[in-house]
Amino acid sequence: MRTPLCDAFGIDYPIFAFTPSEHVAAAVSRAGGLGVLGCVRFNDTEELEQTLSWLDENTDGKPYGVDIVMPMKVPEEVKGLDVSSMIPEEHKQFVDQTLLKLGIPPLPEGEGREGVLGWLHSVARSHLDVALQHRPVLIANALGSPPKDVIDKCHEHGVKVAALAGAAKHALSHVANGVDIIVAQGYEAGGHTGEVASMVLQPDIVDAVGPDVPVLGAGGIGSGRQIAASLALGSQGVWTGSIWLGTEEYRNLSANHSAWETAFTRASSSDTVRTRVYTGKPARLLKTRWTEAWAEEGAPQPLPMPLQNLLVAEAHNRIVASNDPDVISMPVGQIVGRMNAVRPVADVMADLVAEFDETVKRLDGMSV
Amino acid sequence: MRTPLCDAFGIDYPIFAFTPSEHVAAAVSRAGGLGVLGCVRFNDTEELEQTLSWLDENTDGKPYGVDIVMPMKVPEEVKGLDVSSMIPEEHKQFVDQTLLKLGIPPLPEGEGREGVLGWLHSVARSHLDVALQHRPVLIANALGSPPKDVIDKCHEHGVKVAALAGAAKHALSHVANGVDIIVAQGYEAGGHTGEVASMVLQPDIVDAVGPDVPVLGAGGIGSGRQIAASLALGSQGVWTGSIWLGTEEYRNLSANHSAWETAFTRASSSDTVRTRVYTGKPARLLKTRWTEAWAEEGAPQPLPMPLQNLLVAEAHNRIVASNDPDVISMPVGQIVGRMNAVRPVADVMADLVAEFDETVKRLDGMSV
Repeated sequence: MRTPLCDAFGIDYPIFAFTPSEHVAAAVSRAGGLGVLGCVRFNDTEELEQTLSWLDENTDGKPYGVDIVMPMKVPEEVKGLDVSSMIPEEHKQFVDQTLLKLGIPPLPEGEGREGVLGWLHSVARSHLDVALQHRPVLIANALGSPPKDVIDKCHEHGVKVAALAGAAKHALSHVANGVDIIVAQGYEAGGHTGEVASMVLQPDIVDAVGPDVPVLGAGGIGSGRQIAASLALGSQGVWTGSIWLGTEEYRNLSANHSAWETAFTRASSSDTVRTRVYTGKPARLLKTRWTEAWAEEGAPQPLPMPLQNLLVAEAHNRIVASNDPDVISMPVGQIVGRMNAVRPVADVMADLVAEFDETVKRLDGMSV
Repeated sequence: MRTPLCDAFGIDYPIFAFTPSEHVAAAVSRAGGLGVLGCVRFNDTEELEQTLSWLDENTDGKPYGVDIVMPMKVPEEVKGLDVSSMIPEEHKQFVDQTLLKLGIPPLPEGEGREGVLGWLHSVARSHLDVALQHRPVLIANALGSPPKDVIDKCHEHGVKVAALAGAAKHALSHVANGVDIIVAQGYEAGGHTGEVASMVLQPDIVDAVGPDVPVLGAGGIGSGRQIAASLALGSQGVWTGSIWLGTEEYRNLSANHSAWETAFTRASSSDTVRTRVYTGKPARLLKTRWTEAWAEEGAPQPLPMPLQNLLVAEAHNRIVASNDPDVISMPVGQIVGRMNAVRPVADVMADLVAEFDETVKRLDGMSV
């Protein structure tokens, strides 16, 4: 499995792996792909600094990337506490009552009140500054184009910039802003996603941006067959995320991991939902009693970003602590239906590559 | 482009083309695919009889199929007039007011009051009886498994039965009922569709039903790259629909065709919507002022099948007669973004085959 992206990044396979876990990222890079560390969870830049130092030392010198969450238009920003005052009482009450109804206990005194601050522009910028002190080969932005000065700064450091797009017109605008690589994020993907599905979106974007801009297919990629489909559609590589949530290395991220393993093992591809309850923008999550509660008649509309994430931050911490597979709040793609066992990253990578080769051979026999 | 389905049906390419137009169906079959005539529009079985006789004579002896719309569970059925009495006054008023607001004139006295009756079980059965007097090689059912006695009757006539499925569990139930071929209808498809997108749905269904049941990939298929992607995912062929709405042969179906050509030519892949306004079940349509009106605050919820289609039957006839590209009501998939010109069926077929071969060669170069 070789495309020009392999030479551009010094990797064996054009498999890009987004993950909040440095252990997964390192294992993917060691296995010949490109591990991309999600930074949004690092409220403390010192912790990110230490994590990237760990990555530098645990990738056998192989390249890696980082993923930030930065809107192109810098919003008026206030401190977390001030933003909280913009959250309506009705919403706070709904969250409290829902957690009560779902049997999710409060946190011990003094624990876990803080939300994820990586959604704030200033925090994302500090992530970038820390990252550029290390040796990432790629900065990806989950919210489309970063601001022009951020792109320029990455380029000065010799770092490529990738941006997610859910429609061809967004991809064109990213390229006009200086973005190097487009991640075509189809409807079936976990996390923030648009409405156009991969089968249509990938060739749409490939043809719109032209042959000089590499496209990574994202959404529904969890097997070698799906990688082959993605490259058939014209992508030069794939952007994967969900499948790495089912690996042994991912277990390092959380002490309460068994609820998630139970939840994804039993889920089918119909058990996800695209909803605004996680961040305020449409994102695909596992369908659980938590997402269902927000879809019930009488539930409030989710708040806009970044308010919604601040609203549910403590609830998310309580849900994680409760370790209840029926209530878990987790971004994941429709590929969750095929995640049925916890395996080492290296085994997953080996299967992806082997099945890709088999698929290309099979197709070869059909072209007569 | 050859798979075992080519031998099973005596066709050159495993490209199945659903179309309400006998002219398109005949042209696809003559060009080496399998044209499948949609029967739902035939209120008059005598008209279907004549149309199938025309097909028998205009396919150069090549095979063709027919598509019916038959729920497995036979609903309590009453005559059209009685069903109409079950439609709430609020809904009738909403339709009238919306058409007024959109500037759609009434029909001339005595014209076009009749709805599409093919959605009624008794009518779908009469379609089947007429079809079996001709020489279809395939009966496809757009609503999943037909009843067991219908499957048996097809098999007695040596006719294979295909059924649409939007989830692996539905496909398994179709196979248990005796269905021969599964059409894996992804989220991006036009018409009735589920929530799982093709990239995930096709391998889900292929693996669920096993190697003895051929699967056709449907949803987002309008180019040779997409056919290659579909076969990479494990399908043995593709089921196409939308792309044939942009052919010269399709123009024979309606005198008022220019509005539709204007509408699909300018639409992007983001300009469709999955909604219950067409039949009462979720179906993907072109997004127009008509579908937007139903999505507005205060609009009534669509009625269940078959009431919704009866409710909007006259409105659809008025919309067609008005020939207004902004209001058109048309099932079409996300692939509409790539439909930018009206071409002969034979040219579309030739391009699909040529691009498939190029794609397989390109993939071959990536497998090293």
